[in-house]
Amino acid sequence: MRPRIAIDAMGGDVGPRVMVAGAALARHRHEGFQFLFVGDETQIRDALKDHPNLAAASEVLHAEDVVSADAKPSQALRGSKKTSMGLAVNAVKAGDVSAAVSAGNTGALMAISKLALRTMPGIDRPALAALLPTLKDTDVVMLDLGANAECDSRNLVQFSVMGAAYSKIMHGFEKPSVKLLNIGTEDAKGTGTIQDAAEALRSAKGLSLDFRGFTEADKISTGEVDVIVTDGFSGNVALKALEGTARFVTDLLKRSFRSSLRSKFGFLISRPATEMLRGHLDPNNHNGAVFLGLNGVVVKSHGSADEKGVANAVEVAARLVEDSILERISEEISKIGQSTPAAAAAK
Amino acid sequence: MRPRIAIDAMGGDVGPRVMVAGAALARHRHEGFQFLFVGDETQIRDALKDHPNLAAASEVLHAEDVVSADAKPSQALRGSKKTSMGLAVNAVKAGDVSAAVSAGNTGALMAISKLALRTMPGIDRPALAALLPTLKDTDVVMLDLGANAECDSRNLVQFSVMGAAYSKIMHGFEKPSVKLLNIGTEDAKGTGTIQDAAEALRSAKGLSLDFRGFTEADKISTGEVDVIVTDGFSGNVALKALEGTARFVTDLLKRSFRSSLRSKFGFLISRPATEMLRGHLDPNNHNGAVFLGLNGVVVKSHGSADEKGVANAVEVAARLVEDSILERISEEISKIGQSTPAAAAAK
Repeated sequence: MRPRIAIDAMGGDVGPRVMVAGAALARHRHEGFQFLFVGDETQIRDALKDHPNLAAASEVLHAEDVVSADAKPSQALRGSKKTSMGLAVNAVKAGDVSAAVSAGNTGALMAISKLALRTMPGIDRPALAALLPTLKDTDVVMLDLGANAECDSRNLVQFSVMGAAYSKIMHGFEKPSVKLLNIGTEDAKGTGTIQDAAEALRSAKGLSLDFRGFTEADKISTGEVDVIVTDGFSGNVALKALEGTARFVTDLLKRSFRSSLRSKFGFLISRPATEMLRGHLDPNNHNGAVFLGLNGVVVKSHGSADEKGVANAVEVAARLVEDSILERISEEISKIGQSTPAAAAAK
Repeated sequence: MRPRIAIDAMGGDVGPRVMVAGAALARHRHEGFQFLFVGDETQIRDALKDHPNLAAASEVLHAEDVVSADAKPSQALRGSKKTSMGLAVNAVKAGDVSAAVSAGNTGALMAISKLALRTMPGIDRPALAALLPTLKDTDVVMLDLGANAECDSRNLVQFSVMGAAYSKIMHGFEKPSVKLLNIGTEDAKGTGTIQDAAEALRSAKGLSLDFRGFTEADKISTGEVDVIVTDGFSGNVALKALEGTARFVTDLLKRSFRSSLRSKFGFLISRPATEMLRGHLDPNNHNGAVFLGLNGVVVKSHGSADEKGVANAVEVAARLVEDSILERISEEISKIGQSTPAAAAAK
């Protein structure tokens, strides 16, 4: 199936020019991609002039309004018939495109997507998932990163299934390993919610995942597991702690390199090394975040992503469509319905 | 008041020799300190031979048993009359010493301390607090780091008061600024528990702290606030994410420095800079964690701390005793009792 992807051209800090350039890059690498750009028609057509190949594979849908970066989800919902974000997501709902990509306000995108697409049968709540860099060759899938501040054990079991399906598609693992984030790895650690979810996952039969118990937040970046599942509060805290610390350490490093002439010289010489570090941590080299559990594929590109970042997000969206993420999740969730103890927690 | 401090000589990965050397270092810097070393008498006396000044200011209490690193809290409690950790904490209870320092198993130390010392009047649950490095000159106090996996709004309000008292003593701030950890900084963000705690702190009168709303985990290391308060689950996740990411980034850096001859050369030249970075992140340059809210001062030194780390933990314990942390917390908690809306949440 040829993916046709709606691009919210107006979201993010970057504007239509970068969104269009990113789509052009993705299209350059995957000839079959088709696009529907949603936003200010004049600006989009203008940006498309630089990319004739892309223009030939694209349509434009004019939207007169934009969801602002600080709009509350409720405001964004009210205006969604006129905004580029609202129209892009509604194009997924109408079956006009197979996925939507936006670099706009995450809370607004979640609210609009939830209302337009609804959660899949068997899923209580959608989750926000992302691929995070590790010391190994493959990124780790982590969810929920903030869609649900409070979760019950059913949610955590469903997130495990959704995260495993995502990992399987992105990395080709037959049975991705899954752990629940906890504050210790012993069986008795953590809240009742986590205990119940672990019990359900341990006793579930026939799932395409390998449940391995608990992990702690200092193991996220080691790559010891393929999928890490947690509630949206802890997930958001962990994600932001990762981002903040990476920035903290690189700032400290810059500062110490500036502290003596000798260090400055060393810094210049070792620049390629620090550039490599930066490249590994750069969000543009990873995709955006994905909303899982909805009747449709919606990808959130990083707000400050450059064209490489946008192209990555577009490619993730296409991959999820081509590899039928919705059907995979459905199928797995129906297995939970059949196995008794997990069913108690997840149905 | 001359602090006399019980040292669990057997806890941690390091053994009596490092605990004694750490105490000697602290004593070298503060002449008045007195010590009670608890553990294997032969090993302790042997270690004391290298430090005659310290030996003159120390007593030894023999303990026949040790709490193992992987002991469950319940096991540790059962044996606490015979272990070095149990006897050290019980010396605080008996009034024989003014504080206890241990590098042993955190869960066991918490359980033993809670049972022996009990929570202070007006405090529902004790919390684990630590000073974390920031880009500014002063460390940030963060709590709870894992003592309570689930917290209500009363707990969060009490933790705010305890954390502010700790920050005041360590840094001398008159009214330390306090923020609650959340998944967004807008007023309406987060769980009902966090909302209620914020409301109580906003309307509390006369507290020696400046409540400034919410912060996110990417701001922990920026030093934008003096005290960050959260439940023990999120706090533990944030702390471990910080530790893991710092290690991740330094590992990546090492790897990229190894990737070319030029980088290797640059690395050698800039070594003083990377050593400075390591020094800033080294847990030995920060104190251990402190249990706040108990009728007594108990400090957890890092399990792998060297003598500098142990000396820091000893100095923190002494400082908390000399500056009457218990009385300060008591006084502040009684103010919450008087101001109505905070009282609703915290009483």
